[in-house]
Amino acid sequence: MRAVDLIAKKRDGQSLTADEIDFLVRGYISGDIADYQMSALLMAIYLRGMSSAETVALTEAMLHSGTVLDLSDLAPRRVDKHSNGGVGDKTSLVIAPVVAAAGVLVPMISGRALAHSGGTLDKLESIPGFRTDLSLQEFRRALDRVGVALIGQTVEIAPADKKIYALRDVTATVPSPPLMAASIMSKKMAEGISGLVLDVKVGSGAFLKDEEQSRALAKTMIGIARGLGKDAVALITDMNQPLGRAVGNSMELVEAFETLKGRGPDDFNQLCRELSAEMLLLGDAASTLEEGRSQYDRLIGSGAALEKMREIIESQAGDARVIDDYELLPGSPSRREVRAGSTGFVSSIDTEQIGRASMLLGAGRVRLDSAIDYGVGIAVNARIGEEVGSGSVIATIHFNESQSADEAEDLVLRAYKIESERKPPPALIKSRLT
Amino acid sequence: MRAVDLIAKKRDGQSLTADEIDFLVRGYISGDIADYQMSALLMAIYLRGMSSAETVALTEAMLHSGTVLDLSDLAPRRVDKHSNGGVGDKTSLVIAPVVAAAGVLVPMISGRALAHSGGTLDKLESIPGFRTDLSLQEFRRALDRVGVALIGQTVEIAPADKKIYALRDVTATVPSPPLMAASIMSKKMAEGISGLVLDVKVGSGAFLKDEEQSRALAKTMIGIARGLGKDAVALITDMNQPLGRAVGNSMELVEAFETLKGRGPDDFNQLCRELSAEMLLLGDAASTLEEGRSQYDRLIGSGAALEKMREIIESQAGDARVIDDYELLPGSPSRREVRAGSTGFVSSIDTEQIGRASMLLGAGRVRLDSAIDYGVGIAVNARIGEEVGSGSVIATIHFNESQSADEAEDLVLRAYKIESERKPPPALIKSRLT
Repeated sequence: MRAVDLIAKKRDGQSLTADEIDFLVRGYISGDIADYQMSALLMAIYLRGMSSAETVALTEAMLHSGTVLDLSDLAPRRVDKHSNGGVGDKTSLVIAPVVAAAGVLVPMISGRALAHSGGTLDKLESIPGFRTDLSLQEFRRALDRVGVALIGQTVEIAPADKKIYALRDVTATVPSPPLMAASIMSKKMAEGISGLVLDVKVGSGAFLKDEEQSRALAKTMIGIARGLGKDAVALITDMNQPLGRAVGNSMELVEAFETLKGRGPDDFNQLCRELSAEMLLLGDAASTLEEGRSQYDRLIGSGAALEKMREIIESQAGDARVIDDYELLPGSPSRREVRAGSTGFVSSIDTEQIGRASMLLGAGRVRLDSAIDYGVGIAVNARIGEEVGSGSVIATIHFNESQSADEAEDLVLRAYKIESERKPPPALIKSRLT
Repeated sequence: MRAVDLIAKKRDGQSLTADEIDFLVRGYISGDIADYQMSALLMAIYLRGMSSAETVALTEAMLHSGTVLDLSDLAPRRVDKHSNGGVGDKTSLVIAPVVAAAGVLVPMISGRALAHSGGTLDKLESIPGFRTDLSLQEFRRALDRVGVALIGQTVEIAPADKKIYALRDVTATVPSPPLMAASIMSKKMAEGISGLVLDVKVGSGAFLKDEEQSRALAKTMIGIARGLGKDAVALITDMNQPLGRAVGNSMELVEAFETLKGRGPDDFNQLCRELSAEMLLLGDAASTLEEGRSQYDRLIGSGAALEKMREIIESQAGDARVIDDYELLPGSPSRREVRAGSTGFVSSIDTEQIGRASMLLGAGRVRLDSAIDYGVGIAVNARIGEEVGSGSVIATIHFNESQSADEAEDLVLRAYKIESERKPPPALIKSRLT
């Protein structure tokens, strides 16, 4: 087998066999296949696509490039959720404690802020002392103790994905459904789960703006899970406006705590409820979705989910007093109100620009080694379909004086479209795929 | 400008501007753009194509990465010919002296054997002492003295093409019309020519098997020449059987000498005559093609072309006595006759396999640093449309006992298809594009 012949095969639109894909991934990790060959292959995959058998094979090859956890001794059912990123998307911070409080094991390996989208790990690291860098041994112990743990990708998990992802980032081969699906699933399948709930975003703040693309990605990921003998279900959910009201690390954490206290924004609470119900169903903790939803309400109402959140923070070396005293979280010294320039109804929000504005304030990384400002962000007041008057506050920018708020303000203002006719807000949950 | 954004632009099927292409080529030469980015771009170009404006811009960027000769002080009209390779294609060895003998300057930078196809430089190097590695200064002096010189690509000529070509070879991005055209034309345009005749091969022994592809390549190359203010004409010519009878370095040289002496095989002589007439027309040494053909006949008949060949060899330090005494050329000690297995008419010849058989005998390189055996090769006896009896000799293998002739014999035998119905031989010149 020669790499150049396999690149030519994919270039010409033919399917690669599992053995050929394994040869390519192994060769790339060992250094026998050069970066420039892998990048040519990735571009050919980007433009020619991959069959579902090929995507499963790619996922398996990347999965088996590292450690695959076996947690079956801890619990018979182990369920995680994956979201492909958005603005204000903090559902993990609510559903992980809810589902664990119901007795389902939740081993969650999460990501960081990427482009305009926030990351669960960065939000958790707003908590003084909180450790997301547990070793796999510590992860297992935390799971055994608390039933849930949230960590970052370790060097042992899917190293081939890590190397290939870095290459995709600089060769314009990121937004390819089979490559995205295999990347996500190779990490998720390494967690030792029995089932996975996929929250696939679509809309102006998602990586995929088009519903058909999102459905295709969801189907590809479900196909991979099935191919590897796991249960999976996907919800296609709206990302045409920020989820909830808070965008920014500690601001989002506070909104998640409020939701666990039963005081969360309706849209965010509704999505957490649906995703939790799906996880409880896959985890055999509910026999119907309706029963799952009731459980969610009960676990929030009783304070059990909040209590589980406290356990998670303590288990991962964080200061759990933040739950009761938000002043202990990083804040920002300055505020600026963004006011509508005209009267009418919010007809659309370019949500990616809201995400970018938050990143500009310091909520994300400009370079891989940039420090994050956990306290900054944007509180979104006006949502699609809501009436605004000229001069009314549509958002509040929380910033640190070391960064200018001007550009962020300008981005937020331009992201809002205000029209005289009221348009109905987009449906939060667009479809469910199994 | 960022390389990754330009790769994405081409990936999405958009056109790159001349400035963007220049940025990419310069950046690649300087090392600011990595191999893995260039290979992703090349695959995107392979699959998305390039407009003619983009192809001209790519050619110019590669051309200006090195020295561009200015030979306008030597002669007002300077004409070269380019062929995209075939089996037994030795036309340069005849037309260069013919056209120079008519007073047109012929600055010819040629290539080596590639895959199954022979190379002009290797054929010339069969001549004891012959130097193809003249410096550009020596090249200019030889042109001034003799009116024609044949050399290889120097380090000063289109270094960007050299670097990109090496990358294409290992990333399955060679057979792309815009990349092929830009590669060829960046070298040819550096020669300081005013006009170029393109001999674009099509058929079983060509790199392009399909006439439409060949026409597309020819049109792309003509478009580039025009875009850079040069005259160009293309002949689409047949490569469904070896050109002439000789395949192999010194064997082909002898056939070229015989043709210069007026004793060449009909098909080969006819193609040399047409290509020479086109060059004479572009070189203002003939006012019609018919006049060009008559000049060809006259320059062969008078011995003037043969005399020019003698001057070339002497000018480039070769032993010109080889013209009169073929025994001074490398030979091969052994012969094996390949005999037809059945009676009938030759209906087709898989000419690429004849080329491969010759390479197997040692006429080409297995690795970049392999030594060539100049004396070996294949004398082709039976051509398409000719009748053969079972046991009659269809080809003779000239080999050196250090290599086995078995595999070559098998390839030649299997390349020949013999059927009971006679098919007419393919037309040698299929079309002319201007």
